[in-house]
Amino acid sequence: MYYIGIDIGGTTIKAGIVSKYAEILGTGSIPTIADEKCDQIITGIVKLCSKLIHDSHLFVSDIYGIGIGIPGTIDEKSGTIVYSNNLAIENIPIVERLKKHTHIPVLIGNDANCAAVGERIFGNARGNDNIIFITLGTGIGTGIIQDGKLLTGRCGAGAEGGHMVISCDGERCTCGRKGCWEAYASATALIRMTKKAIEKNPNGKLAAVAKEEGKVSGRTAFKAEKIGDGDATNIVNDYIRYIAEGIINLINIFRPEKVLIGGGMSNEGDHFIERIERIVMKESYGGERNPRVIVTKAGLLNNAGILGAASLCIPSDIKRDEEF
Amino acid sequence: MYYIGIDIGGTTIKAGIVSKYAEILGTGSIPTIADEKCDQIITGIVKLCSKLIHDSHLFVSDIYGIGIGIPGTIDEKSGTIVYSNNLAIENIPIVERLKKHTHIPVLIGNDANCAAVGERIFGNARGNDNIIFITLGTGIGTGIIQDGKLLTGRCGAGAEGGHMVISCDGERCTCGRKGCWEAYASATALIRMTKKAIEKNPNGKLAAVAKEEGKVSGRTAFKAEKIGDGDATNIVNDYIRYIAEGIINLINIFRPEKVLIGGGMSNEGDHFIERIERIVMKESYGGERNPRVIVTKAGLLNNAGILGAASLCIPSDIKRDEEF
Repeated sequence: MYYIGIDIGGTTIKAGIVSKYAEILGTGSIPTIADEKCDQIITGIVKLCSKLIHDSHLFVSDIYGIGIGIPGTIDEKSGTIVYSNNLAIENIPIVERLKKHTHIPVLIGNDANCAAVGERIFGNARGNDNIIFITLGTGIGTGIIQDGKLLTGRCGAGAEGGHMVISCDGERCTCGRKGCWEAYASATALIRMTKKAIEKNPNGKLAAVAKEEGKVSGRTAFKAEKIGDGDATNIVNDYIRYIAEGIINLINIFRPEKVLIGGGMSNEGDHFIERIERIVMKESYGGERNPRVIVTKAGLLNNAGILGAASLCIPSDIKRDEEF
Repeated sequence: MYYIGIDIGGTTIKAGIVSKYAEILGTGSIPTIADEKCDQIITGIVKLCSKLIHDSHLFVSDIYGIGIGIPGTIDEKSGTIVYSNNLAIENIPIVERLKKHTHIPVLIGNDANCAAVGERIFGNARGNDNIIFITLGTGIGTGIIQDGKLLTGRCGAGAEGGHMVISCDGERCTCGRKGCWEAYASATALIRMTKKAIEKNPNGKLAAVAKEEGKVSGRTAFKAEKIGDGDATNIVNDYIRYIAEGIINLINIFRPEKVLIGGGMSNEGDHFIERIERIVMKESYGGERNPRVIVTKAGLLNNAGILGAASLCIPSDIKRDEEF
C-alpha cells in the first residue's frame, strides 16, 4: 500500500513514493516552468510518477493514491487549481486530467493544508482532531483541521490566516491589504525589520553578524541576540510577539488542541517555540479557565511537502501494525 | 410542535414559546440576579417555563425542546456554563439540571452562536450552510456556521472573533489584550472615539448633537455626519473601516456565503451595511477571483434572543408547509 506525494513549488516539482509508515521509497523532481502550458506540466508529472513507480519496482496497482500540494487557491471538491500566483495558472482541472492519464485516484490541496494533514498522519499531531498548522517562511500559510476535517472555505478560498490584519494600516502586504500577519511574522518581515535596524546602526553587532553572513537572513537577528546585541533582542522580541498575536487570534476562534509551527523559521529551535507559547498561554481568551493549547514545532522536516501531499490520500484512522 | 427559547442576559432572563414559523405564542421574563445561587436561577427558569406553557394553553408534551442562549463560554457537548462574566457563575451543568425538572430536551449555546443559528432557521440566512453572524453592541460577538455546523471550538472556548487583535498594541480590551476588534468596532469603541473628538472640539457640530441627545451614544457620530460634520465623517469612516477589517479577516479564514450584522449598531441602516460591504469586497483575499461574500443586516430584530435560543432545538431541514 503506497502513495505518491507531489509537491509543486515555484521552482521545482518534487515527487516521492511514500508508505503508510512515512518511509520514502524514492523521490524525483522536475523544474517548474512558470510559463509552461498546463498540458506540459501534467505530462511532466505523469512521466515523473511513472519513473518513480518503475524505479521502486512497483506496479501502478500498488499505488493507492496520488496527493498533490500546491501554493494557491485550490477547490478540493472539484480538484481544480483556481489560481496560483507562483505558477501563473488559473482554473486547471488538474485532478481530472491526472486521473485520466494515471488511472490512480488523485487528491489535491493547498500546500499549507497538506502540511496540516501531514502532521496529523505522520508528524506531531498524530491522534489530534483539532489542530492549526502554521508555516513561517517567505510568507505565512495556515492549515486548519477541525473535528478531523480540513477547513478550506467555500471553493477552497479560506484558511488564509496569513492575510488576517493584526496591525490596521500597518505594513503593506503582497495581497494588497495593509497590516497582514504575513507582513509582520514571516521570515520576509523579520528580514525587513533586521535591515531597518542595521540602517539605523550600521556599526553595531547586528550589522557585523550580517556582514559575516554575507547577507541579512531570517537567522541574523537571532544570531546577534545570542551574542548580546540589544537591537537584535528588540527585533526578536517584537517578531515573536507578532507571531504570537496571530496565533492567539486563531486560538480564540478555533481553540484547537495544538498549534504546530513549521517553515524555515521553525528551525530557530525549542527556545523560540517556548517564547511564543509563553505569550500565547498568557493572552489567549479566558486564560486558564479555557483548555490549554499546546504550541509545538512541526514534526515533518525533510520531504515535508511530499509527505504532506501523500497524506491527503491516507485515511487518518488507517491501521498500522506498530506505531512509528 | 413548539419550542421554548430562553435568553439569559445580564439584567433579565427572557423566555418565549416559539413555533417553527417563528410565531411567538407568549413571552415572559424574570430579573437576572448576578449573585443568586445557581439553584435559584434554575428554579426561576423552571417556573417561567411552566407559566408560559400554561398561559399558552399548551401541555409539556407540546414542547419539543428548550434552547438557552447565554453570554459566556458554554460547553455545548456537556451542557455546561463554563463561565459567564456577566453572571458571575462557573461550571454549572445547567442542561442536566433543567432536563431533570422539566422533562423536556434542553440545549444551550453562547448568545452569538444562538443568533447565528436563529438567522439560519428564521432570519436572513435561510438556506445558507456557511455564515458568520456578528453582533455589534457593547462588545462584539461572533457566531460561525460551517457546512451547517456551529463552530464552538474545544470545550466551547472558540468563536471569539471579537477578541482577534486587529491593531497590535492598540486600545486595551476588556479581555486583557491590546487592540482587539471589540476595542475598535463595538458601540463602546465608537462612543469612546466620539467622546475623544468632542473633547478636542467642544464647540463643533458633533458636540452639539451630543448635547441635544443628552449623552454620547453609538448614534451621535452617525447623526452628526448626516448634518455634514467633518469630525463625525472621520469617526464614522474609521469605525466602518475597523468593522470591515475584522470581517475581512474572518472571510479570509472561512470564506462563507454571507456575513450577517446584528446588534444595536445594525440599526444604522442599509447605507451603513453597504459602506462596510464595499470595503469587504475590495480587500478580501483574492479579490474577484474568489466567490463573493454577501454582507447583510441580520433578519431577526425583536425577540432575536428568544428566537435564536429556540432555534438551537429546531433541525435546519425542518419541513414547513409554506415558506414564511
